[in-house]
Amino acid sequence: MLYITRREIFNAAHRLFREDYDDKTNFEVFGKCSNPNWHGHNYTLFVTVAGEVNPETGFVINLKELSKTIQGKIIDKIDHKNINLEVDFMKGKMASTELLTRAIWEQLEEEIRLLGARLFSVKLYETENNFVEYLGE
Amino acid sequence: MLYITRREIFNAAHRLFREDYDDKTNFEVFGKCSNPNWHGHNYTLFVTVAGEVNPETGFVINLKELSKTIQGKIIDKIDHKNINLEVDFMKGKMASTELLTRAIWEQLEEEIRLLGARLFSVKLYETENNFVEYLGE
Amino acid sequence: MLYITRREIFNAAHRLFREDYDDKTNFEVFGKCSNPNWHGHNYTLFVTVAGEVNPETGFVINLKELSKTIQGKIIDKIDHKNINLEVDFMKGKMASTELLTRAIWEQLEEEIRLLGARLFSVKLYETENNFVEYLGE
Amino acid sequence: MLYITRREIFNAAHRLFREDYDDKTNFEVFGKCSNPNWHGHNYTLFVTVAGEVNPETGFVINLKELSKTIQGKIIDKIDHKNINLEVDFMKGKMASTELLTRAIWEQLEEEIRLLGARLFSVKLYETENNFVEYLGE
Amino acid sequence: MLYITRREIFNAAHRLFREDYDDKTNFEVFGKCSNPNWHGHNYTLFVTVAGEVNPETGFVINLKELSKTIQGKIIDKIDHKNINLEVDFMKGKMASTELLTRAIWEQLEEEIRLLGARLFSVKLYETENNFVEYLGE
Amino acid sequence: MLYITRREIFNAAHRLFREDYDDKTNFEVFGKCSNPNWHGHNYTLFVTVAGEVNPETGFVINLKELSKTIQGKIIDKIDHKNINLEVDFMKGKMASTELLTRAIWEQLEEEIRLLGARLFSVKLYETENNFVEYLGE
Repeated sequence: MLYITRREIFNAAHRLFREDYDDKTNFEVFGKCSNPNWHGHNYTLFVTVAGEVNPETGFVINLKELSKTIQGKIIDKIDHKNINLEVDFMKGKMASTELLTRAIWEQLEEEIRLLGARLFSVKLYETENNFVEYLGE
Repeated sequence: MLYITRREIFNAAHRLFREDYDDKTNFEVFGKCSNPNWHGHNYTLFVTVAGEVNPETGFVINLKELSKTIQGKIIDKIDHKNINLEVDFMKGKMASTELLTRAIWEQLEEEIRLLGARLFSVKLYETENNFVEYLGE
Repeated sequence: MLYITRREIFNAAHRLFREDYDDKTNFEVFGKCSNPNWHGHNYTLFVTVAGEVNPETGFVINLKELSKTIQGKIIDKIDHKNINLEVDFMKGKMASTELLTRAIWEQLEEEIRLLGARLFSVKLYETENNFVEYLGE
Repeated sequence: MLYITRREIFNAAHRLFREDYDDKTNFEVFGKCSNPNWHGHNYTLFVTVAGEVNPETGFVINLKELSKTIQGKIIDKIDHKNINLEVDFMKGKMASTELLTRAIWEQLEEEIRLLGARLFSVKLYETENNFVEYLGE
Repeated sequence: MLYITRREIFNAAHRLFREDYDDKTNFEVFGKCSNPNWHGHNYTLFVTVAGEVNPETGFVINLKELSKTIQGKIIDKIDHKNINLEVDFMKGKMASTELLTRAIWEQLEEEIRLLGARLFSVKLYETENNFVEYLGE
Repeated sequence: MLYITRREIFNAAHRLFREDYDDKTNFEVFGKCSNPNWHGHNYTLFVTVAGEVNPETGFVINLKELSKTIQGKIIDKIDHKNINLEVDFMKGKMASTELLTRAIWEQLEEEIRLLGARLFSVKLYETENNFVEYLGE
């Protein structure tokens, strides 16, 4: 079993808040991240796939196909977008790094199975100081 | 003459567009950056100051004071903010990295002179692939 | 279960040696790190916490609280300090990265439980070429 | 149990291809990586060793000895070399990052056991966007 | 006047040697870099353009056009290639980082003038420890 | 004229203080950096040399010789040392990054001239947030 990882980057706006909180409560819970006018990040995404090496190619997975899958299911939908307003797979969810990481997993898991491999980890850096990892359970 | 640099980071939302363009023209000129719902970045700012070494302290400038100045004049105003809507020193300007870099220079130049040094360069990374530098002329 | 990580940095002096060794033996075992006049590092610390997402906030843990805890229990005690002489939680221990990593775990484990989460990993970079990770057992 | 990691770098040329494929098929499967005139990378290698802390030294393993082992068994054989043509431990294997990572594991496992520790992970970055990890099974 | 920089990456094989030297002399002068079987690098290229801000767009240069120019004139010709054997603009030149940097300048200077800006600097990292900059004179 | 840069790293302890100040004044001026028990850093040094390309070798300077010079004149004297107590070229100087950068210039300038090139810049990172550059005048 080998683990192969692909890094991708996207830039997006978001806001942390609850509609059922007033502004003061949102600020107490979410701090500056609750700014109603949005802020944003350069998100760095690491997608790790686990599998056996294909003896014919020496690959666990064809990285071009993996990259194309991440592009189509994630990057095209979220890059230069507003996570709260425009990303279908985040509809109805808070735009925390935790929930975004898990939603990316859900977007990719089945697609990667179709490529003949198994999604092992999704890791998402919001800044150089904060990142979240999800292993599917 | 020595050159000393302080790095600071801020996260902000922005949009590239002109009000006198329609959406189609904005997209042609500014691409994905014209998204009306905003996107954002982790901006990395490098402020370089030039000066002689103070023989009493071994410093060109007290970095704590430089950092406090950058904090008060830049970071407090732009971090977790919307550059187009909320940043006083960007009012009426397009939120390109070029104009933001120059505006940061204008915010800092006089303040750094009051600290007894000379602002030499403002460098601003929008992403790991794009950055702008301004030397004041 | 999600894993969220916070990065913090501290700068400290240390020395690797045993009092019951003479200088020659210390040098044989610990090399340049045994220099009696100390040397130092910019240590980079990664603290990973595991937990379920709080459905109310979208958070595993409030990162501001996690950061404040790391600040109070670790950074305030070790930043710009001498690890061998001044850090209470390293008293009587050798100042190796291994033992420092484990001591940081012991400082943080209970505090993070009080924040409602579980400490999963402490990872400590001494240089860009060397780092240690501890998972608590 | 602690995990200690050593980073090393090597620069090498390689090519992904099968002798039993014609050039067109090699290009379809391996893309630009199949270029018959070679291309190359700055590979970054992370070797992680697991073990208990030696109470006498505070070390899991003496990093100088670990580094010397990696140097002798890996770096001296592969740095500034052609992976397909010149590296004994890659003879008869395709020069994919996956198979290279596993071959490095096989080179190091027994040597590290002789140093009194256990090889836990070999992680190899081919570029900043792609890396492979192997845990020995 | 502002300075805007675009980063691009390419992976290539090369060799430092002179045909009029024998292997022993090549090794004495160029060390491991003279390996007849090639080695390679992940080269990181920084192209800096100087210009006034266009008041209509807020841009010194349209970065998409700059990136397309670098792609067409440099990356397409050198990425996943052998610099000594396959790169038209390096024909008859030694494949040192110095000469490669200057050749990239010569490839880009006129093209960037056609985009309405002025090439200011080409900086090329061969490794994280070595890089060359050329300012055109 | 081309500019070639070599990166080197050293780890050292230091303290910012004046003997003619009492502890309270030292703390007011130098903050935590005045800790009498020392602290330390992983310093990253960039040495840039300017010169014409030697048409015989394609080099501005032989990087192995440049690296050996930096090793002998700087790294061997300062790595794993106490800058205030043990570094001959810092004797009688305050251990600020500014004065250290200038002292490294003075150590290297003549040596690099003997290698047939001209020292252009010494840049020294104390942390990822602070660095100093000196151009010799």
